[in-house]
Amino acid sequence: MTQYKYLLQEKDMPTHWYNILADMKAPPPPYRHPGTLELLGPDDLKPVFPEALIAQEVSTERFIEIPDEVQDALKMWRPSPLYRASRWEKALDTPAKIYYKWEGVSPPGSHKPNTAVAQCYYAKQEGLEGFSTETGAGQWGSALSFATRLFGLKCKVFMVAVSFQQKPYRRIAMETWGGEVVPSPSSETNAGRAILAADPESPGSLGIAISEAVEYAVTHDGYKYSIGSVIGFVLLHQTVIGLEAMKQMEMAGDYPDIVIGCAGGGSNAAGLIYPFLKDKLTGDRQDLRAVFVESTASPSMTRGIYAYDWGDTAKMAPLIKMHTVGHTFIPAPVHAGGLRYHGMAPSICALLEQGEAEARAYHQNAVLGAAVSFAQAEGLIVAPETAHAVRAVYDEAMACKESGESKVILFNNSGHGHFDLGAYDAYHRQDLPDYELDEAAIQKALTELPKIPA
Amino acid sequence: MTQYKYLLQEKDMPTHWYNILADMKAPPPPYRHPGTLELLGPDDLKPVFPEALIAQEVSTERFIEIPDEVQDALKMWRPSPLYRASRWEKALDTPAKIYYKWEGVSPPGSHKPNTAVAQCYYAKQEGLEGFSTETGAGQWGSALSFATRLFGLKCKVFMVAVSFQQKPYRRIAMETWGGEVVPSPSSETNAGRAILAADPESPGSLGIAISEAVEYAVTHDGYKYSIGSVIGFVLLHQTVIGLEAMKQMEMAGDYPDIVIGCAGGGSNAAGLIYPFLKDKLTGDRQDLRAVFVESTASPSMTRGIYAYDWGDTAKMAPLIKMHTVGHTFIPAPVHAGGLRYHGMAPSICALLEQGEAEARAYHQNAVLGAAVSFAQAEGLIVAPETAHAVRAVYDEAMACKESGESKVILFNNSGHGHFDLGAYDAYHRQDLPDYELDEAAIQKALTELPKIPA
Repeated sequence: MTQYKYLLQEKDMPTHWYNILADMKAPPPPYRHPGTLELLGPDDLKPVFPEALIAQEVSTERFIEIPDEVQDALKMWRPSPLYRASRWEKALDTPAKIYYKWEGVSPPGSHKPNTAVAQCYYAKQEGLEGFSTETGAGQWGSALSFATRLFGLKCKVFMVAVSFQQKPYRRIAMETWGGEVVPSPSSETNAGRAILAADPESPGSLGIAISEAVEYAVTHDGYKYSIGSVIGFVLLHQTVIGLEAMKQMEMAGDYPDIVIGCAGGGSNAAGLIYPFLKDKLTGDRQDLRAVFVESTASPSMTRGIYAYDWGDTAKMAPLIKMHTVGHTFIPAPVHAGGLRYHGMAPSICALLEQGEAEARAYHQNAVLGAAVSFAQAEGLIVAPETAHAVRAVYDEAMACKESGESKVILFNNSGHGHFDLGAYDAYHRQDLPDYELDEAAIQKALTELPKIPA
Repeated sequence: MTQYKYLLQEKDMPTHWYNILADMKAPPPPYRHPGTLELLGPDDLKPVFPEALIAQEVSTERFIEIPDEVQDALKMWRPSPLYRASRWEKALDTPAKIYYKWEGVSPPGSHKPNTAVAQCYYAKQEGLEGFSTETGAGQWGSALSFATRLFGLKCKVFMVAVSFQQKPYRRIAMETWGGEVVPSPSSETNAGRAILAADPESPGSLGIAISEAVEYAVTHDGYKYSIGSVIGFVLLHQTVIGLEAMKQMEMAGDYPDIVIGCAGGGSNAAGLIYPFLKDKLTGDRQDLRAVFVESTASPSMTRGIYAYDWGDTAKMAPLIKMHTVGHTFIPAPVHAGGLRYHGMAPSICALLEQGEAEARAYHQNAVLGAAVSFAQAEGLIVAPETAHAVRAVYDEAMACKESGESKVILFNNSGHGHFDLGAYDAYHRQDLPDYELDEAAIQKALTELPKIPA
């Protein structure tokens, strides 16, 4: 009989995170100060992030130990299953062998808590009282609310006002775990009050919410700021995905030719891909293809430029050397809200520049079509973000059908779409727009990048 | 370090279902015809159910083989994990040892597909074209839509109109798997047209939807009717839960003193409990307590009487000897829609009568309070139905705290609450009513039971 799942036991979980900086040809350039544009030192980040995380950010150690308490928290849902998508292969009539790592088994339903529990552990070690953060549709806020509760920390979530009103379910989940959720702009910060003074009905934005969360952290004793993607330590924590997957692929007796993940800030894709990319960087698997998949709504990797830009729209976050469509660019309102970030994780961008990885972008109808095909064969209804990876797998599987090759494809099924079924409904009703990219808007946004002193 | 989960591999899955009829002191009395009130023979059910399922309904074989293709379908999410709720034990400060079987890992999010895939297999074997069924909030319809797609069958779902309008997410999920969902009452059946003629704005009811689904099956060539609970073969198919759990409890080195499940029609509870109850019925574990937990909104086991009653409100389904509050009784609109059935699975009722099991009922605030406590410790946000089991576990754990006993408690965590977060929101806002039982209404309903000829 067919084997569908490759399951590890808790004792088989990785004991160390993998730090790709140790194996890259060159690390990504350092962050710069958002105001002075000068290079940032570790000390500059101390008011914002726990010190242990800042140390991880600049570490070049290849393997960094996962504390026992973090492993204990990860065990609440890890190790996650690795599936062979046999039924989907059959439906597509492809000779490709498709595998996926299923991260939707975590209580908040995605890969996000992999880093949330680690960040909370270090915050607790440092004696902090709580974390503040921002959230759009609520995926990251859910993960942090869940994790703060596990470690006895408080959680203050600034949720983009329009999502707060229109998407109550993730707010309710956050509140159930004990998080305090306020619509942003709020009257609790200077940043929020300034926006409300100008427009009491402001729908908010992720940029405003980040500003509020960071201000709240630096103005409240015992609070720091927690971040859900882009930054190096977040990607580091996500490597448990790929480290588990390597063992599971070994159980399956296969090794991937192509590893694929969707990328907004890049953390779930890097989490799966980096441990495999180690084999490419260190010489054993030079043919491995690492594919990062983004939305055409915010095509930082496929249309943006590689330059320093602010990490946030409010210019409060550090400058990051990355592929960016510009911090002032406003992406079309696609359902995959998690892919609407203007930039990308700096290590991913450096790997793209170094020719070690590739990128592609899709419109949302192509993406949802592939996700429906996947759901009908494999059962799982994935998040609209994840569906971008599913589409890339579909294309690779179809290329195999064309060429007759039996390539091994592995992708990260990063989360379920239970709170995003509206995207599927729009697709079924043929009412899902494929937004044209506003080329003039990107060109304008790219003129607003910082001018770095020589 | 703590072990949280006990995980089986696919090769450890049960190869046979357990049929409790083989071990009961006496089987439940046979069904009767809804019109003549006479005893029903297997042939009477053939227009409605696949023949292999009717054979299972009356079988007294102790173990019934699970066909390979059904095992293959179950492997898409099974074996499901068994958890030790260590964090909740600690939060409750109880000496009790709490375990739970987690059925929310299936693509539709509950235990329901365990029987849906089996029913679809036998339908396909019989050469049927499709299944019709009814659904309230959509949990069962989701499971059947998912399963029919796997076996290449069509699926026609009559969804209670008010849920169709107010709860679009489960409808979208059903449609994503390829199910055809129509609001009930519909214009597609005589039953539906009659209701619409009298009230074009009818909100529908589960009783009307059942009538439409059965009529659709018997009037459409190649269609039969699929049912999600109450009936013997459904409970049989659910015993994979308990059979897996027995192996996992052995891995954990424990055996339960108390096994608990929530019960609307009774299938998830029986699925976990029956394999353990075998040990009690056959002598080894006479102290085992089997606890079925219902809602005070429809207290068939704790307030109803044990008598023949129609299986549905429309008097089209067979008469079943069961604990019932009367087929005309209308339960209060509690969030746990799956527990609003007026009767209970006949084997569960016979076991209650025979003193082999016990029942209790809870109001929804008590239930949601326990579910929030569970979510904050264990992460998982359970369905409002499942929360009834969680409350019973809470009470048993607190009794252990009082007595200092370290009992082993196992319960079925039968599904997630991702589509039912409104119940949690109402609880947080202290806006969740604890409906008083309408004693006069039950007494009146109990006068409307069939008068069985002596």
